[in-house]
Amino acid sequence: MHFDEPLPLRSGASLPSYSLVYETYGTLNAERSNAVLVCHALNASHHVAGTDERGATGWWDNLVGPGKPLDTDRFFVIGVNNPGSCFGSTGPMQLNPATGRAWGADFPVVTVEDWVDAQVRLIDRLGISKLAAVLGGSLGGMQALSWAMRHPGRLEHCIAVATAPNLSAQNIAFNEVARRAIVTDPDFHGGHFYEHGVLPKRGLRVARMIGHITYLSDDTMEAKFGRELRAAELGYSTQAIEFQIESYLRYQGDKFSEYFDANTYLLITRALDYFDPALEHGGDLAAAFVPARDKRFLLVSFTTDWRFSPARSREIVKALLDNRIAVSYAEIDAPHGHDAFLLEDPRYHQVMRAYFEGIAAGFGAAKTEAAHV
Amino acid sequence: MHFDEPLPLRSGASLPSYSLVYETYGTLNAERSNAVLVCHALNASHHVAGTDERGATGWWDNLVGPGKPLDTDRFFVIGVNNPGSCFGSTGPMQLNPATGRAWGADFPVVTVEDWVDAQVRLIDRLGISKLAAVLGGSLGGMQALSWAMRHPGRLEHCIAVATAPNLSAQNIAFNEVARRAIVTDPDFHGGHFYEHGVLPKRGLRVARMIGHITYLSDDTMEAKFGRELRAAELGYSTQAIEFQIESYLRYQGDKFSEYFDANTYLLITRALDYFDPALEHGGDLAAAFVPARDKRFLLVSFTTDWRFSPARSREIVKALLDNRIAVSYAEIDAPHGHDAFLLEDPRYHQVMRAYFEGIAAGFGAAKTEAAHV
Repeated sequence: MHFDEPLPLRSGASLPSYSLVYETYGTLNAERSNAVLVCHALNASHHVAGTDERGATGWWDNLVGPGKPLDTDRFFVIGVNNPGSCFGSTGPMQLNPATGRAWGADFPVVTVEDWVDAQVRLIDRLGISKLAAVLGGSLGGMQALSWAMRHPGRLEHCIAVATAPNLSAQNIAFNEVARRAIVTDPDFHGGHFYEHGVLPKRGLRVARMIGHITYLSDDTMEAKFGRELRAAELGYSTQAIEFQIESYLRYQGDKFSEYFDANTYLLITRALDYFDPALEHGGDLAAAFVPARDKRFLLVSFTTDWRFSPARSREIVKALLDNRIAVSYAEIDAPHGHDAFLLEDPRYHQVMRAYFEGIAAGFGAAKTEAAHV
Repeated sequence: MHFDEPLPLRSGASLPSYSLVYETYGTLNAERSNAVLVCHALNASHHVAGTDERGATGWWDNLVGPGKPLDTDRFFVIGVNNPGSCFGSTGPMQLNPATGRAWGADFPVVTVEDWVDAQVRLIDRLGISKLAAVLGGSLGGMQALSWAMRHPGRLEHCIAVATAPNLSAQNIAFNEVARRAIVTDPDFHGGHFYEHGVLPKRGLRVARMIGHITYLSDDTMEAKFGRELRAAELGYSTQAIEFQIESYLRYQGDKFSEYFDANTYLLITRALDYFDPALEHGGDLAAAFVPARDKRFLLVSFTTDWRFSPARSREIVKALLDNRIAVSYAEIDAPHGHDAFLLEDPRYHQVMRAYFEGIAAGFGAAKTEAAHV
């Protein structure tokens, strides 16, 4: 969907005109009351569920679909790719209309709030005045929270999974190392590598390897790889692969560097860094949630998530309770670290299913088939 | 000290001839019974205490010196730089006698066991048949443990601080990302950058930034930097420094890249990866400590150390207890993460002081001054 009206950004700049790629699943009901927006995190896209024309399965396909916890037989689900990303919406790889060359590093810095404002316009165009829910995990959860604070009149429920009210110093530190790896790659060319016919793959590989360490729990990594060797014997080499964990990380880094845009990586990690709704309230997170007083929330965290630990979700729960806001909170005992939000943990999915059934009951969505619980 | 006799290495290779740079503090007593060897970790050296000719303070100066917990009025302390390092002992920056060019990436892969064997030769030359203690923190602690297992007749006490019986998958993962950052830096030139008149500083910077994240606890980073901005206002930039933590990491990375050798970084992180004394005993750590049955041990860990957590020290304590070996264990409640072993925490230093006083009492070292406790 194309938007001619410029999008004013938090930085003071604006995005002149832009396009958003989106997908929908299920059917919008006559009352237009069953729409759920799903917000993506760092490296995902509008392709949330099902199989696309290239045979790729959606990134949250285990959660979203017919008979699944977010049941597309009942809900009209919308996935949208955010501006600045590299999966079709206006981003650094595309042409800057002002210069006729690719935006590259000149793409304006976008924030969680900017994305949410862009998403509101999409919802407007789709003729939906109020979403049944906005759902997201990790950075997507930040967008869901931001919807509730910025546009409380436009949603009923906010569902934020494995997220945080802002990044810790350690979170920012990991982002910064990843960015330095990209920016100092000689193939980055100040962010205008497209014109040089090269890609800063070395930097992207290192960035992704760091990311993967923070997505998995220490325990999962230990259980999955431990000190397992790739060969029967040690090779005594500083550069060859000795341990299976090295092989895994290099593979993940290589794969990522083939499809992900370096400028997008910088933009999205910066959006993570900047998100801090309490800041304009003197650090008082409860004050930031005042506009969302009549919304309902579901927060979910995972015990082994050390990127966005349960303690961070509890900060949000506390700020909501301080406002007497209705909040359900599930802390799922799962071994998979931050990645758990994308996996099919039965207790997690049961919580999600129950919550969405509650929402569906609220708008009286008929479900003719047998219950799937 | 120069050694003409080749050092056989665990890899099967050998180091032809080599030199070890060392420093000593205090006086060896007539019985030659008061010597303590201090083993260094990743980026430290033989310069343990005092001020050298360039005005640099030793890396463990708060612990080692006259009247300090490891009291050089009583003990004869030896600091030695390990082969493969870059502070004067034979290493990748020096000439390979076989080729007449710098060793570079051809320097043989060295292990904790190889270092310990090289250290034994130094102790031989110094005319010391038995050390009162071998002391080390982190990778240095691994060397202390290895002394007790490989050369139990050559020491009385093993003091291992903030260490582990081997690296976890996550530990190896962080090392591997750092190594990839270095090796893929175009200025690395396959490890022979010396001949090209360049240094792989980009890679070293990223490696050191990753290291610093793992040395500090999440809490310390939060307390020290939090989300503090460098300027009064956000600059909305993906590449400029916004947060103080970014400034700190970049500074540490820059500084490190000025003085540390890239090949040494690869070698030392590999020595960390390889250390696993239980491996040749089918994973039974207790079996590995059988030769050390008449030694005495002090293990120290720090509650917020997530690089080598207390749980890892407890594994060692358990293996020692399974052998009915005398072990003292202190788990220090300190906020500083892995770095705590280098800092002057009063409870930590009190434990160290008491333990060394016990050793000194054992060999009847007279202390004429007032006690410093």
